[in-house]
Amino acid sequence: MARWLVILAGGRGERFWPLSRMMHPKQFLTLMGEHSMIRSTRDRVRPLIDPEHTFVVTGADYVNKVKANLPDVPPSHILGEPLGRNTAPSIAWAAARIQQLDPLATMLVLPSDHMIQQEHAFRQLVAKAMQTCENQGGFYTFGIVPTHAETGYGYIEPGGLPSPEGVRTVRRFIEKPPLEVAEAMMLAGQHLWNSGMFVFGVNELMESVARYLPDLFRGLVALMAEPEQLDVIFPELPQVSIDHGIMERAERVFVLPAEIGWDDVGTFAALARHLPRNDEQNAAKGHAIFVESQNVTAISEGPVVSFIGVQDLLVVATRDAVLILSPERSQDVRKVVQALKEAQHDHLL
Amino acid sequence: MARWLVILAGGRGERFWPLSRMMHPKQFLTLMGEHSMIRSTRDRVRPLIDPEHTFVVTGADYVNKVKANLPDVPPSHILGEPLGRNTAPSIAWAAARIQQLDPLATMLVLPSDHMIQQEHAFRQLVAKAMQTCENQGGFYTFGIVPTHAETGYGYIEPGGLPSPEGVRTVRRFIEKPPLEVAEAMMLAGQHLWNSGMFVFGVNELMESVARYLPDLFRGLVALMAEPEQLDVIFPELPQVSIDHGIMERAERVFVLPAEIGWDDVGTFAALARHLPRNDEQNAAKGHAIFVESQNVTAISEGPVVSFIGVQDLLVVATRDAVLILSPERSQDVRKVVQALKEAQHDHLL
Repeated sequence: MARWLVILAGGRGERFWPLSRMMHPKQFLTLMGEHSMIRSTRDRVRPLIDPEHTFVVTGADYVNKVKANLPDVPPSHILGEPLGRNTAPSIAWAAARIQQLDPLATMLVLPSDHMIQQEHAFRQLVAKAMQTCENQGGFYTFGIVPTHAETGYGYIEPGGLPSPEGVRTVRRFIEKPPLEVAEAMMLAGQHLWNSGMFVFGVNELMESVARYLPDLFRGLVALMAEPEQLDVIFPELPQVSIDHGIMERAERVFVLPAEIGWDDVGTFAALARHLPRNDEQNAAKGHAIFVESQNVTAISEGPVVSFIGVQDLLVVATRDAVLILSPERSQDVRKVVQALKEAQHDHLL
Repeated sequence: MARWLVILAGGRGERFWPLSRMMHPKQFLTLMGEHSMIRSTRDRVRPLIDPEHTFVVTGADYVNKVKANLPDVPPSHILGEPLGRNTAPSIAWAAARIQQLDPLATMLVLPSDHMIQQEHAFRQLVAKAMQTCENQGGFYTFGIVPTHAETGYGYIEPGGLPSPEGVRTVRRFIEKPPLEVAEAMMLAGQHLWNSGMFVFGVNELMESVARYLPDLFRGLVALMAEPEQLDVIFPELPQVSIDHGIMERAERVFVLPAEIGWDDVGTFAALARHLPRNDEQNAAKGHAIFVESQNVTAISEGPVVSFIGVQDLLVVATRDAVLILSPERSQDVRKVVQALKEAQHDHLL
């Protein structure tokens, strides 16, 4: 009855172009701190979970990159999906593999590309969730206490009263809301952001998969029997998220409110918010020179980036591509990626 | 009694960093058209002057670059200055060498890094100046008919009435003026920009050097006698421009008004003015992608430069340095070069 970690690392990260590329998506970037996002994700829970008790689910193209980033993880625990089918198949595949090794396992599921500043508080919360799960079963989510009316995340509405440990039941999951709804929830002060991090027992998860997603369950049974048929079986699995497929339907779903300095760092603007600024509100990751400029962020993988007499810009520079945008437009990076695709500049993608 | 061309190619071109570098200044850049500025300068007068009748005065560090750019020019005609002593020593050194080969030569002196759009009109004007010089001697300048109140150029005030060929005497040279003076001259409509291009007989020039700049003359006599003493003699030559040292003092100085699409392309903003623009006033030299952006200029030596939701920018990109500036600040590029020098990032200079 051990603890296992499952890291979800399937993202393609187009919002971080040109830092991220098709063959080098966000989870492999060193956006914060000294290590790649995926390595930081693994290191963050190292005191709680043995590195050998880690599974990573990623795109088939990224298996070697995961190996290079996480050399402590047994290569057979790195699962390469022939294509993305959303989170339920990814998590259930890892769960099926863990179940073979350790039928009484408790699983921690983490996205590979989130930032958590308060790592000690985070570990305490994870330990509490795993302990509670081991004692009484159930599905556990981590609900981030919101700092603003964000429309880019799903929300969790807690119900009932907190347990002595601060664990609450989940009344319902709420999809990414329109701004008015987000503002109303922020005002009410009850709702939490759905961080996409989970804890559950591997058997309870597989039972729920069998009950709520029987097609997925059958597919996984086939895959466990004939792993060499991955490229045939996997694309036929139902494309569904763990939230929709399991969490919204399961009976004993709990949430732990979390104040842990969490950010999914979904855009360059989010990354820019975490960089230290000088007196003129300029910030740099990499080598930059600011001459009479204000509120400028430079993120460089190599080139020195110099500014003269400009304001309110976000610049990302690599040796073969430079992106210059208004900070509030960082959701639109995909438009450039799309233009490059249409112009068939595949070497830049 | 042949015609000779002297190209002045000593500039270090810091205003074009990061395209220009200490070892690759502006005259070797392909800013307009298909060839380097220096090659275009030479090609422009090819119908008038035999390539073998060309001297180039440049920095000692740039001799090999000049050879590569101008393979038709005899290597012995490429004069490498151990350091810059302004234009009078450069021109007089070339004149002394030409005088040895062809005492009756007429010299055309051209900066190596100017743009001239109307090449046919330019050649007609040069031919007229050289013809007139051969017939009656004197010093000839080319006075650009101003298009705006520019404070970055010296001016020429013509005197007397034009000759039948349109040649005028020079009443006086005017240093780079303050804006009010430039505006007044523009309004009066008589003054011309001093383009730094000249025609004169080699003997008449050397006589004037002997009369007005006797130290320079003595230095050149010593240099002609002992060319191997270049590194000792050259740094001792007086540092003076041909305008101050000779033109402002000589007796028979003429100007040919020139409407030839001339631009010294002194800044990135000047270069940007000559690029074609799209409907949103964006322009690119190199690969650029514009998403909902206006009045943006991209100049790239390689990286694709992408813009999202920005306005009024000038961007210059190379593989190891990116410069982002407000278009009206392109005179300040040196501030970045200075900052890099102070930080001892010599590999970027």
